[in-house]
Amino acid sequence: MFEAAELGHEISKAEYEKEVPLLRAGLLQAQRDLLEAKVPLIMIISGADGAGKSETVNRLHEWFDPRGLETNVFGPLTDEERNRPDYWRFWLSLPARGRVGMFFGSWYTDPIIRRTYKQMGGAAFDRALSRIEFFEQQLAQDGALIVKLWLHLSKKQQKKRLTRLEKDPKTRWRVNPIDWKHFKLYDRFVKYSEEALQRTDTGFAPWTVVEATDDRYREITVGRTLLDAMQNHLARKKIVIPPAKQAIPPGDVVSVLDRVDLGRTLTDKEYDRRLAQLQGKLNRLSRTAWEKKVSSVLVFEGWDAAGKGGTVRRLTSAMDARLYRVVPIAAPTDEERAHQYLWRFWRHIPRAGRVTIFDRSWYGRVLVERVEGFAREDEWKRAYQEINEFEDQLCEQGMMVTKFWVHISKDEQLRRFKERQKTEFKQYKITDEDWRNRKQWDAYEGAINEMVVRTSTRGAPWVIVAGNDKRFARIQVLETVCRRLEKAIG
Amino acid sequence: MFEAAELGHEISKAEYEKEVPLLRAGLLQAQRDLLEAKVPLIMIISGADGAGKSETVNRLHEWFDPRGLETNVFGPLTDEERNRPDYWRFWLSLPARGRVGMFFGSWYTDPIIRRTYKQMGGAAFDRALSRIEFFEQQLAQDGALIVKLWLHLSKKQQKKRLTRLEKDPKTRWRVNPIDWKHFKLYDRFVKYSEEALQRTDTGFAPWTVVEATDDRYREITVGRTLLDAMQNHLARKKIVIPPAKQAIPPGDVVSVLDRVDLGRTLTDKEYDRRLAQLQGKLNRLSRTAWEKKVSSVLVFEGWDAAGKGGTVRRLTSAMDARLYRVVPIAAPTDEERAHQYLWRFWRHIPRAGRVTIFDRSWYGRVLVERVEGFAREDEWKRAYQEINEFEDQLCEQGMMVTKFWVHISKDEQLRRFKERQKTEFKQYKITDEDWRNRKQWDAYEGAINEMVVRTSTRGAPWVIVAGNDKRFARIQVLETVCRRLEKAIG
Repeated sequence: MFEAAELGHEISKAEYEKEVPLLRAGLLQAQRDLLEAKVPLIMIISGADGAGKSETVNRLHEWFDPRGLETNVFGPLTDEERNRPDYWRFWLSLPARGRVGMFFGSWYTDPIIRRTYKQMGGAAFDRALSRIEFFEQQLAQDGALIVKLWLHLSKKQQKKRLTRLEKDPKTRWRVNPIDWKHFKLYDRFVKYSEEALQRTDTGFAPWTVVEATDDRYREITVGRTLLDAMQNHLARKKIVIPPAKQAIPPGDVVSVLDRVDLGRTLTDKEYDRRLAQLQGKLNRLSRTAWEKKVSSVLVFEGWDAAGKGGTVRRLTSAMDARLYRVVPIAAPTDEERAHQYLWRFWRHIPRAGRVTIFDRSWYGRVLVERVEGFAREDEWKRAYQEINEFEDQLCEQGMMVTKFWVHISKDEQLRRFKERQKTEFKQYKITDEDWRNRKQWDAYEGAINEMVVRTSTRGAPWVIVAGNDKRFARIQVLETVCRRLEKAIG
Repeated sequence: MFEAAELGHEISKAEYEKEVPLLRAGLLQAQRDLLEAKVPLIMIISGADGAGKSETVNRLHEWFDPRGLETNVFGPLTDEERNRPDYWRFWLSLPARGRVGMFFGSWYTDPIIRRTYKQMGGAAFDRALSRIEFFEQQLAQDGALIVKLWLHLSKKQQKKRLTRLEKDPKTRWRVNPIDWKHFKLYDRFVKYSEEALQRTDTGFAPWTVVEATDDRYREITVGRTLLDAMQNHLARKKIVIPPAKQAIPPGDVVSVLDRVDLGRTLTDKEYDRRLAQLQGKLNRLSRTAWEKKVSSVLVFEGWDAAGKGGTVRRLTSAMDARLYRVVPIAAPTDEERAHQYLWRFWRHIPRAGRVTIFDRSWYGRVLVERVEGFAREDEWKRAYQEINEFEDQLCEQGMMVTKFWVHISKDEQLRRFKERQKTEFKQYKITDEDWRNRKQWDAYEGAINEMVVRTSTRGAPWVIVAGNDKRFARIQVLETVCRRLEKAIG
């Protein structure tokens, strides 16, 4: 991929000075258009040491309107970062719709460097590249424009450049001892960079290799590449997207919910005995998990009035309040709405050893957003894979991930709705929306079934809770959490 | 303060069961009313070990609508937290308007514990309490309702409680070895807790001491206290606040801006020489600061077209892109708007060793918000003290804080506005707003003068930059930053 970037391209000073004003005017206009179209621009500046990455970042700060521009630089992991999946810090740095995020150092840095230093084998490198590809695809499908720039220097040029920078006292600081260390590994570095670039050079996030020997050529090429990409993206945006199709699941499907025995109950006495026993056990396990730095992510979904809240409280009252956090998911804020839908859940990923309980979750995408048509068909259809990938990253970090669907029968729901209306301090829990949702029972049942089938994985299984008897449901959840925690602690 | 909480208060089971449903209905209604009135509720649950803080938190989770409730627990400092002022984590945890933030452990914990353990002297304790008082006053003035609950146990009762908890295998986990260690220091703990409570028992954030011996009495008292506070606050809210007064500063004041010699210039040659020299110096200093973990906060304010952007770029192009971050301040997001105005700046406080450059800042409160009447007179008037306190906390953390007002003459501004309109890639920089602001020149000049007078402190001084000659201004800023950094590094 790098052959075309060793041809000795140059641009004269006169040509440069003629082009820059036009380029700047064009970039500013395109930046404004992206803002209006609410398209986030993700720009990756990578390449060889000494190729002028830092200078390029500075130049773009001058050419773009800095009010819409963010520079993201990633240093060694902090302890907050080390305790989360690798992509946590990347997710939280993504630009909001309409903004420009420059990534100086990115999700490519670590795999390429580790592969170059033989800290990562071929198979792991391959997996890392697949993860990158999926990550970028996900962002592109969400509407992001991704421009990836690789500033290339030949081995000879790199040596020359580093030597020159080092000679001049004014630029000596730009050369790091680690740059020379990297230089010795130039061939390996180029080999694996090339492999990474080829594997991730996709239609939705293509690479542009820029010959970096001549400063003016480098700057103009970077500017032109960005301008082209922005203009093309905006032109494509105008293509009309087909209207959202309401997905009505076939009515005759046997759903996973049908298999649940809702007749199971527990006596008061049995309930009290097992509750005390399981809460004590959960308490001990949660403290061991904390000591061993094993985090848990528990997801609660369920029919309205299925008793999620009461079940969650039986878990939390058994644990030290310093160890858990309940995250109720309501309507997103505007910062959240301005990002891909998983962004707001990444914000709540626990540090090591903590338990995070999501009262409703990212599954809203394939439940309410699907049924109500808030998400387009292509959006909720690809969400299954996006969610699996997300949870897979949590599991890889050693987290215990378990998802509960609290199930009740349609009759039982009606009984509870009526009961809630009678009790003053429960009335707030029942709204017109609950009655509306109830009318969509069958559509939801289809969506739930598909959700469970597509996203119940070995690492992050769904557990369908028999909720008609609240006592039985609570014990079932407590038992499951204890069993899963025990396994995760090992 | 604790005498009234050792009287052996109890509530019978019958009375409890009669009161709870009413209390719950009342609390839910009040919570909804606070949401509608956009009042954040900050609730502190403190007190003796074993007094039932954790149980109270759990009970309130049951009584409130958990969708609007956040529990904040603070553990040992993470390295991200250690690198920032103590209050950073408290600021970031504050509930948004209309939400309820429960603080289980708070800004009180550390001073009381450290004073009890003799890790903090009387004078430092006193300063810590003043800081708390100011912090709470600031939040209350911003409209927050602050309820502080202290669950009290007598020495005898505490011993009894801890022993009882420890005996029962189901509750043994609630007793921590550190609880017994604290118990041995009971008298000192109570003495300093009482001092803290008395010092911070203010009209805007009063303490309620709750006798915690009887569980039912404790719960009902906590519930009643909260309900009263919420209802009273809402009743008070209805008092009409006088309309914002436009503050027109007297016209004949001699402002700090008048003292600036705008005639100073630099030749191209002199500029090039000093620029190269100072950028090299800044580069070395910024790397030393990073090694020594000294952060910098640089604030840039100035007239429209004063050349802030170009000046900032002369700083950033001298530094490693991994060490600085430019934060342009535009309109707040809705999450930001839902908090006290300083909240969004706390979000950007750098980790140790980094440089953060604010392109516009918290001074908007006493500049544009004052002049345009977006902030009420009482709001911008108290902002000077709030800002000084904020910057004081940054300085205490060892940060280098410097604020630049880039000054130009009114004629020079006009010349630049016209020039910008002529250059295509500069047109975006000039808007109708700039022309409107220009008409308010005198009002701004009064506001700038008062700002500089009231907020230029020894630790965080204002520097007025003579901006008519851009070269001179850039060198002045670079020189100042270098000098201040040198001093901060020591």
